[in-house]
Amino acid sequence: MRAEDRSDAALRPVRLTRRFTRHAEGSVLVAFGDTQVICTASIEEGVPGFLKGKGQGWVTAEYGMLPRSTGSRMRREAAAGKQSGRTQEIQRLIGRSLRAVIDLAKLGERQILIDCDVIQADGGTRTASITGAYVALADAVGCLLREGKLSDNPLREHVAAVSVGIVDGRPLLDLDYIEDSGCETDMNVVMTGSGRFIEIQGTAEGEPFSRDEMNRLLDLAGQGIAELIVLQKQALAAA
Amino acid sequence: MRAEDRSDAALRPVRLTRRFTRHAEGSVLVAFGDTQVICTASIEEGVPGFLKGKGQGWVTAEYGMLPRSTGSRMRREAAAGKQSGRTQEIQRLIGRSLRAVIDLAKLGERQILIDCDVIQADGGTRTASITGAYVALADAVGCLLREGKLSDNPLREHVAAVSVGIVDGRPLLDLDYIEDSGCETDMNVVMTGSGRFIEIQGTAEGEPFSRDEMNRLLDLAGQGIAELIVLQKQALAAA
Amino acid sequence: MRAEDRSDAALRPVRLTRRFTRHAEGSVLVAFGDTQVICTASIEEGVPGFLKGKGQGWVTAEYGMLPRSTGSRMRREAAAGKQSGRTQEIQRLIGRSLRAVIDLAKLGERQILIDCDVIQADGGTRTASITGAYVALADAVGCLLREGKLSDNPLREHVAAVSVGIVDGRPLLDLDYIEDSGCETDMNVVMTGSGRFIEIQGTAEGEPFSRDEMNRLLDLAGQGIAELIVLQKQALAAA
Amino acid sequence: MRAEDRSDAALRPVRLTRRFTRHAEGSVLVAFGDTQVICTASIEEGVPGFLKGKGQGWVTAEYGMLPRSTGSRMRREAAAGKQSGRTQEIQRLIGRSLRAVIDLAKLGERQILIDCDVIQADGGTRTASITGAYVALADAVGCLLREGKLSDNPLREHVAAVSVGIVDGRPLLDLDYIEDSGCETDMNVVMTGSGRFIEIQGTAEGEPFSRDEMNRLLDLAGQGIAELIVLQKQALAAA
Amino acid sequence: MRAEDRSDAALRPVRLTRRFTRHAEGSVLVAFGDTQVICTASIEEGVPGFLKGKGQGWVTAEYGMLPRSTGSRMRREAAAGKQSGRTQEIQRLIGRSLRAVIDLAKLGERQILIDCDVIQADGGTRTASITGAYVALADAVGCLLREGKLSDNPLREHVAAVSVGIVDGRPLLDLDYIEDSGCETDMNVVMTGSGRFIEIQGTAEGEPFSRDEMNRLLDLAGQGIAELIVLQKQALAAA
Amino acid sequence: MRAEDRSDAALRPVRLTRRFTRHAEGSVLVAFGDTQVICTASIEEGVPGFLKGKGQGWVTAEYGMLPRSTGSRMRREAAAGKQSGRTQEIQRLIGRSLRAVIDLAKLGERQILIDCDVIQADGGTRTASITGAYVALADAVGCLLREGKLSDNPLREHVAAVSVGIVDGRPLLDLDYIEDSGCETDMNVVMTGSGRFIEIQGTAEGEPFSRDEMNRLLDLAGQGIAELIVLQKQALAAA
Repeated sequence: MRAEDRSDAALRPVRLTRRFTRHAEGSVLVAFGDTQVICTASIEEGVPGFLKGKGQGWVTAEYGMLPRSTGSRMRREAAAGKQSGRTQEIQRLIGRSLRAVIDLAKLGERQILIDCDVIQADGGTRTASITGAYVALADAVGCLLREGKLSDNPLREHVAAVSVGIVDGRPLLDLDYIEDSGCETDMNVVMTGSGRFIEIQGTAEGEPFSRDEMNRLLDLAGQGIAELIVLQKQALAAA
Repeated sequence: MRAEDRSDAALRPVRLTRRFTRHAEGSVLVAFGDTQVICTASIEEGVPGFLKGKGQGWVTAEYGMLPRSTGSRMRREAAAGKQSGRTQEIQRLIGRSLRAVIDLAKLGERQILIDCDVIQADGGTRTASITGAYVALADAVGCLLREGKLSDNPLREHVAAVSVGIVDGRPLLDLDYIEDSGCETDMNVVMTGSGRFIEIQGTAEGEPFSRDEMNRLLDLAGQGIAELIVLQKQALAAA
Repeated sequence: MRAEDRSDAALRPVRLTRRFTRHAEGSVLVAFGDTQVICTASIEEGVPGFLKGKGQGWVTAEYGMLPRSTGSRMRREAAAGKQSGRTQEIQRLIGRSLRAVIDLAKLGERQILIDCDVIQADGGTRTASITGAYVALADAVGCLLREGKLSDNPLREHVAAVSVGIVDGRPLLDLDYIEDSGCETDMNVVMTGSGRFIEIQGTAEGEPFSRDEMNRLLDLAGQGIAELIVLQKQALAAA
Repeated sequence: MRAEDRSDAALRPVRLTRRFTRHAEGSVLVAFGDTQVICTASIEEGVPGFLKGKGQGWVTAEYGMLPRSTGSRMRREAAAGKQSGRTQEIQRLIGRSLRAVIDLAKLGERQILIDCDVIQADGGTRTASITGAYVALADAVGCLLREGKLSDNPLREHVAAVSVGIVDGRPLLDLDYIEDSGCETDMNVVMTGSGRFIEIQGTAEGEPFSRDEMNRLLDLAGQGIAELIVLQKQALAAA
Repeated sequence: MRAEDRSDAALRPVRLTRRFTRHAEGSVLVAFGDTQVICTASIEEGVPGFLKGKGQGWVTAEYGMLPRSTGSRMRREAAAGKQSGRTQEIQRLIGRSLRAVIDLAKLGERQILIDCDVIQADGGTRTASITGAYVALADAVGCLLREGKLSDNPLREHVAAVSVGIVDGRPLLDLDYIEDSGCETDMNVVMTGSGRFIEIQGTAEGEPFSRDEMNRLLDLAGQGIAELIVLQKQALAAA
Repeated sequence: MRAEDRSDAALRPVRLTRRFTRHAEGSVLVAFGDTQVICTASIEEGVPGFLKGKGQGWVTAEYGMLPRSTGSRMRREAAAGKQSGRTQEIQRLIGRSLRAVIDLAKLGERQILIDCDVIQADGGTRTASITGAYVALADAVGCLLREGKLSDNPLREHVAAVSVGIVDGRPLLDLDYIEDSGCETDMNVVMTGSGRFIEIQGTAEGEPFSRDEMNRLLDLAGQGIAELIVLQKQALAAA
């Protein structure tokens, strides 16, 4: 059995707490079970050099883990003097996922910087980050609309993400850390509110996987993401 | 008037939330008003190279701020590839303050690593960090005692810290960010439960200060720290 | 029409030149059209620290591009003082892909380091790298078998990779640089000789993609990889 | 007894040698006994980015130790690729201390960079640095006045620094290395010619210290700094 | 005897393959026996900051070795995070050598960046690099002339380089790796088409060398470089 | 005329001040006119990893310039986070020059680290460094002999260095900064007491130079180095 009697196709309890800290234009604490990530969205007027004068905006993301968010303490990346390859992969993925649902031309010459900082990790930190970051981004965009800096909402649709994997031959939704460590195949799926894919990253950790197994995992992911998007909408509907 | 009608000699509302995250041996969320810091204590068997074979333990600290813990976003130190001078000063201060109240020989050949990560900043992050880190350290030591790895408590006494400063000629306790930015003199004081000093760092930001002004600041600090230590004791007394 | 009248489902001309340089135990120049990568495999006795004493070997990879392998010169990563996030993602992918087809226990306590250095780039450098690196790895393993250091071949099956993508609504196999720059969806697929997946990385560069589009891309990729594996076998069969 | 029969309240022999090297606008070799530091002041037209257009100047400092200025050779920071936390703390302290006695608006849009390089260390390198750096700064300001680039002296008053500490229960002035290594409490005090404080940094190395002990240390420091300022004035009065 | 019955005053077989890769304005594979280096020349409009507005151009060089260009694998400099002292010495030498034969004022406000990447090493990589880089530079200049961006050829004369050394008391031309490792004296000589010196770097690896030995080495080098310049001219004369 | 009526073949006034600082086993202030360098030699028991167990010692060198040793302030390398290519070239040259005159097997399994720190620069810092470093090295070796750690002197002969160059067509000995900036050819020569070469580095800064010019420069260098070695011997003969 899975922890807390969870069924194979069930998400862990998901919470999306808006206005978690007070400085950022969007600030969300997202929890997928014991995985907890602070996602903030910061608006900066102006764009990076490579976009100057192109009449469009930019959305980018950074990711980090508190050193003791994990079972044994990891080295602090600021002290090590560099971000790991894993960190860079994840923050690039978060940035791509969010840019896929926003019309950068409509955003104008400004940048929204997303920070996802894991304060407690139990598997699925990157999918929780994307799911929470969308809500923070929506709050920051809401700010711009309310202040009259934007007249037209640049967000095209929702985006959320979930992990799926094959553990002991069974396809499971939303793996926790123990499941993730023991899985044969691990897949992170990023989808939109309209049910289309933004990113699929499937990796055989043990045995290579078949086309059929992939299809079963995508079915599970599609269902999970639909549920996550409902939760995002509920969170954003609250005052 | 100070924000929220605070009197000159009053602390902001202080909260010490133990077991804030679940992996670390000690994990405390400390709040001094809107300043919020996650303090964790991680036990590692073994000591750094310079202490090998000396029959004693070690306590050290690292400090960081989430990029958007502040009013405008700061650059992520892990992305910048190095910790600022300010960060290093603060983490060295936290480490020294905690080592001053623990008997490292009694701790045995193990290390306790303190991480103080600011999730929301409104002045006084270093003093809140020291005050919260002591409670996390006490919880980690409690762990070692309960597990029988230590038979004798190596903690000698409490330690807490507070900032004081002169703003528009008035000595104030526990400055918030606005007060700190406008103060003439800024002093961080670290004291023990027995009312003695571990560290005093006083800096004239504007005009140099007189001996008399310093004495009034130390009086305020002494009173504030006594109150903080009462709060630490209440927090640790809870189950 | 595609360049050089290529049909949608056709690979570019592929060459696998073994013994391209003379020092490495395996050294292959792989060309996918104008994309050219030198792949070497270097055997080192001993394993990294995290594997010491576990009775198994390791395969890892590094990737680089010569500064002027591209249309406009890129900054040299050694001069910049760090590898980009893209470089790290690619070298992690190459390493995972190769480890998936080798029995690390059978390899013994030694390491095979793969270096993939792009000398000319025209799209698909990571998939060419994986395809060429497998041949270099097979040559290095052949070395160990001939020298009697291994009695049993640790390679379980072939692995190769190809990119597929949707350009102007058409699914295409093995994108060149111009196609890759203009595609809506870009997918890198890594498969084994037995037709199963090791890694799928699909990204919507423009519009999100549907499940149906993904299926058509995977069909194309499966056919292309089967052809690549035939070419690997021919190359390895030569004296 | 202290080395060379020094009394508890006596400074070591202090020398301030102006024009020690010939390129810098101010260049002073300061000796506090066997501690020797080269302090130079370099004038640069223009200010750092954060001050552009604010109609004021800037004074900042850097600090270093020659690798064999100490009893056993330290690693060269340029070779290590970074400055230690201690180095950064000290150079920030020197900069703050000097800025406290100069009117930056009167200095105009130019910068004075102070370099303090320890060629021989025997305790008190930061206090000797501040004391010598003031003289180098005064010489650089003198240059600007003589050349007519400034009509009005921006220096408001003198600044000097000294260490005090409690060793075997006795308060001592101006600790040498052996005294510093064995002291219970170590305090660095920076004061102006008018007898007010710019910075106080007191640290309990062993036992916490009482308010009474602190008062005795500050008395000693005040007397020592008054003597140092007399020596600065004599040095600057010479041709 | 030397490898492959080479006489003491003979070069290894030298090949200069132009248009080795297709993106760079000049791209040459140079081989001195088993030493093989890809030399590219990249034209960039504009000059580095220190030359802005001086009405002249710049030529600079970078050098690297593929990790397994050598008998045992070297650490990748991009992964190590810095270029070695040896790498920096060599790339500075290549840059100086090329700048000595080009009229930078005639080049106009543009930069030519030379990249020399060793794909196989067997001694003499820096001298092969200079010899090949000249041909790549000449091709890039040819480009500028053909496109009408330059009307006047800024190249004043040829430049080539060779190593000479004393091995077992015998002066030898163009040392391979084994000879280089065992030599008493090693000298790298850079000369122009008119037979004058641009750079001489002679180093006693074992015994110091006499004036007479140096003269014999310079005679050998002069003859070898004259031959290399004939080969450069032949290569550049081809279509 | 040269500064201070110096003739073309004359050294600047040279001073070698032993025991300049007190901690190092050898500590020499060397002055070639206005160029002043502190050279220290530090003995460390043990050798670097690549020499462990080979029964020999090692000598290596580091070089630095104080930021304001020069006419305009240079960036501090420790603050920049890396040593420049020039610094690395010079320190490698100093190390090679000293190793050429010491029998490393006789030195035993210990290391002598040379630090050359320029406190005032006026041309010829690398040649002054080598000349002074030899004296510091001799003092450190003297220490080992006196303490009985060595019974046999590992130093085989003296080594010294000087720069020569062609300025306005005239060969000059020991260039100062102005001469060095304006010279056509610049050559650094390192020679032994027996009049043989350890290193020759000749560079055409402007016009390439002829064999005849080189010979005249080497004549000058040989004479200058003979004079420097007399001065080293006098310095070492003093008590």
